[in-house]
Amino acid sequence: MLYEKSTDTLIKNLRCYITDRPGYLGKLLTTIGMHGGNIGDLRLIKRAGLNNLREIELYVRDQAHMQDILHAVGELDGIQVDSVSDAVLDLHRGGKIEMRSIVPVESAGDVRRIYTPGVAAVCRAIQQDPDLMYEYTYVKNTVAIVTNGTAILGLGDIGVRAGMPVMEGKAVLFSKLVGINGIPILVDSKDIQTCIETIVNIAPSFGAIKLEDFRAPECFAIEEALMQRLEMPIMHDDQHGTATVVLAALLNATRYVGDDLRVLSVGIVGLGAAGNGIARLLKSFGVQTIYGADINEDAKNRLAEMGGTPLPLADLMREAQVVVTTTGVPNLIKPEMVRPRQIILALSNPDPEIKPEAAIEAGAAFAADGRGVNNALAFPGIFKGALQARASRINNRMKIAAAYAIASLANSDRKELVPALLNTEVHQRVTEAVERAALESGAVKKLSEM
Amino acid sequence: MLYEKSTDTLIKNLRCYITDRPGYLGKLLTTIGMHGGNIGDLRLIKRAGLNNLREIELYVRDQAHMQDILHAVGELDGIQVDSVSDAVLDLHRGGKIEMRSIVPVESAGDVRRIYTPGVAAVCRAIQQDPDLMYEYTYVKNTVAIVTNGTAILGLGDIGVRAGMPVMEGKAVLFSKLVGINGIPILVDSKDIQTCIETIVNIAPSFGAIKLEDFRAPECFAIEEALMQRLEMPIMHDDQHGTATVVLAALLNATRYVGDDLRVLSVGIVGLGAAGNGIARLLKSFGVQTIYGADINEDAKNRLAEMGGTPLPLADLMREAQVVVTTTGVPNLIKPEMVRPRQIILALSNPDPEIKPEAAIEAGAAFAADGRGVNNALAFPGIFKGALQARASRINNRMKIAAAYAIASLANSDRKELVPALLNTEVHQRVTEAVERAALESGAVKKLSEM
Repeated sequence: MLYEKSTDTLIKNLRCYITDRPGYLGKLLTTIGMHGGNIGDLRLIKRAGLNNLREIELYVRDQAHMQDILHAVGELDGIQVDSVSDAVLDLHRGGKIEMRSIVPVESAGDVRRIYTPGVAAVCRAIQQDPDLMYEYTYVKNTVAIVTNGTAILGLGDIGVRAGMPVMEGKAVLFSKLVGINGIPILVDSKDIQTCIETIVNIAPSFGAIKLEDFRAPECFAIEEALMQRLEMPIMHDDQHGTATVVLAALLNATRYVGDDLRVLSVGIVGLGAAGNGIARLLKSFGVQTIYGADINEDAKNRLAEMGGTPLPLADLMREAQVVVTTTGVPNLIKPEMVRPRQIILALSNPDPEIKPEAAIEAGAAFAADGRGVNNALAFPGIFKGALQARASRINNRMKIAAAYAIASLANSDRKELVPALLNTEVHQRVTEAVERAALESGAVKKLSEM
Repeated sequence: MLYEKSTDTLIKNLRCYITDRPGYLGKLLTTIGMHGGNIGDLRLIKRAGLNNLREIELYVRDQAHMQDILHAVGELDGIQVDSVSDAVLDLHRGGKIEMRSIVPVESAGDVRRIYTPGVAAVCRAIQQDPDLMYEYTYVKNTVAIVTNGTAILGLGDIGVRAGMPVMEGKAVLFSKLVGINGIPILVDSKDIQTCIETIVNIAPSFGAIKLEDFRAPECFAIEEALMQRLEMPIMHDDQHGTATVVLAALLNATRYVGDDLRVLSVGIVGLGAAGNGIARLLKSFGVQTIYGADINEDAKNRLAEMGGTPLPLADLMREAQVVVTTTGVPNLIKPEMVRPRQIILALSNPDPEIKPEAAIEAGAAFAADGRGVNNALAFPGIFKGALQARASRINNRMKIAAAYAIASLANSDRKELVPALLNTEVHQRVTEAVERAALESGAVKKLSEM
């Protein structure tokens, strides 16, 4: 499943000497565009006499595509390619995160306070009251970002080590968006029970656990077992982070067409981690009628168990007033399958199951693809709110509160479904809403009471 | 064992208004000293007209001791106590470390580079060549600081959570002394096999593993199994960090009396984690004759297996030219047991097995206690050097190289055994020495070759 996880793009930095006369830069950019390259940032590196050195950030499909563009650029008059480098690899060199001390260590006295003998007083205090761990250690603000590497992005089981850049990316977002310590943990096993035991064994090291890129169906059993065995915030982001943002998007989509989401029938196409999470959260939100389509029998049984109705794809498209697709299959939905006045979110990236314009043309009332519907809108604030409340779990009321907070910040004049990821107000509002919902729903428990 | 781990001291901040005339501050400090309080930093908080508010950092034995001092101070003329707070707890509030992003996240382009879709290129690169993990993630500079809480400081098995302030303290030292990312991992089990499996399962998350405060004898089996199963730097600090610093101290002690450590007989009193580690490293260094005393039969058998000779304490004291004690038992060594011209390191803190002045008076050529013989002199540079070399293990040559580097920076005019912990040159020299020793001893292996 490629939902919200387009992975077929390379980002390159192309440096060119460009004749400093009107038209040359424009010609270069036009040529790149004509050959299918998307242009990101444009930087002036060196201003020389007759030629300026500029760096152009390019999004290309693959190395061959980059070669095409280079060939075309090479034939231009007054443009000379200086170098091509991989912008992403350059940025990742040495990693993206750092663990650092936030206390002074300037004198022997400092060492005696933060280390032996002073630290023993803190250890003894925690020994007597385990809850003081949340007062006197960094655990209160710390989330393990755990994967076993079986479903990294849309790349599948690429080995647990290859998942680290993604886990670090999540830690970067935690740090920048809500000031949480995200600790990447790679579990080197595909066995469900081994994953569960390993995570349980190291759980006291963290205030919360974020499961990440575990493949379905193993992800369901792992999350369920962990939630039974550990009294702390635990969330499989691919299921519930995604579901929260989709709920936010649907709240706005239905508002824009004047409907109430609860009374509509919703069809989910693709019942993997994301589809399953969406179905469950919508059910909890109050949607009565949920259909689901998948080629996998177990996936359909899971849906039926939670009160949904499995249907073949054609029937689902005919019945459902709202359709959410998370299959990773481009153009799965044919225009003739669109039901009049349907609301369609075709979330697979980079190529949706049906293009929004095609869906509208076929009679849909509202249609959008997955661009912008990013689960990173939800998880930072959900975890921050849960940690601040000292919640012993992340329940549906907390996710629904997060969805409302996200939805409320979308620009309705532009018919935005969700706000921009780097809108800092989003994360603050989600944090506050989740903390309040945790307290109100009784999800808070002290360690000393367990 | 209390070796290098004195834990019976509280650190308090005492704030007093003091009459601003000559003699009053002196009188206050004298009174504190007369009542057994040790004085740390002295800070001027507020300069008023007739009275200055000062904060005095005090080391006291316990709360009752603090009350004694407060009572005495209360009777002084011209001194008024303002407040007493716990300096250590104050400093630990919120924890001592932080995971933070070191890449910019200012624009949508930044997100596309560090997260999806850009990050997929990095994942794919690592999938194809696992060694690239050390190029493009933070793992190359990251050490897990792992404990199961069974031997925290001298406090024993106080629960795994209560160990966190110490693990954070180690992370602080890693960060400040050599710029390494230290990640605290609490393993919630006392079962050897569970500890081993759990650490093996999460090992790909880190570049190296530092075992910490696991009790003996479990610590031996855990370390040995991990070194067999994982090709990465692994070190139980209580054994080998300690041993490295003790070797450094002995190199200097023997130099000061004009002997060569290798040809002397060495007796180790106390064969727990530290004593066992010291015996092994001295053996590897080239010491031919090693005696050991302990009340535990298994401990003596371990010593015999590695070629040492178990002896009763009295016999050991009579035979050994060098004695190192790590028992945690104050005054275990009676003056009449000291052999003429013996070199004695009585390392238990805060009260050594024999006071250095008593040992000298009884005929020892050189004697010292454990103050300053801190394993934090060794571990930061050992791990940094091992990581920089991409070593697949930490071998004895690397530890011996570290010991020489540490020993070389002690001030011989003052007959220092080891230099000060916050002497930054130490950690740089240890790092360089260990990196060189790793390369020369063939301890370097690529992930792709395993």
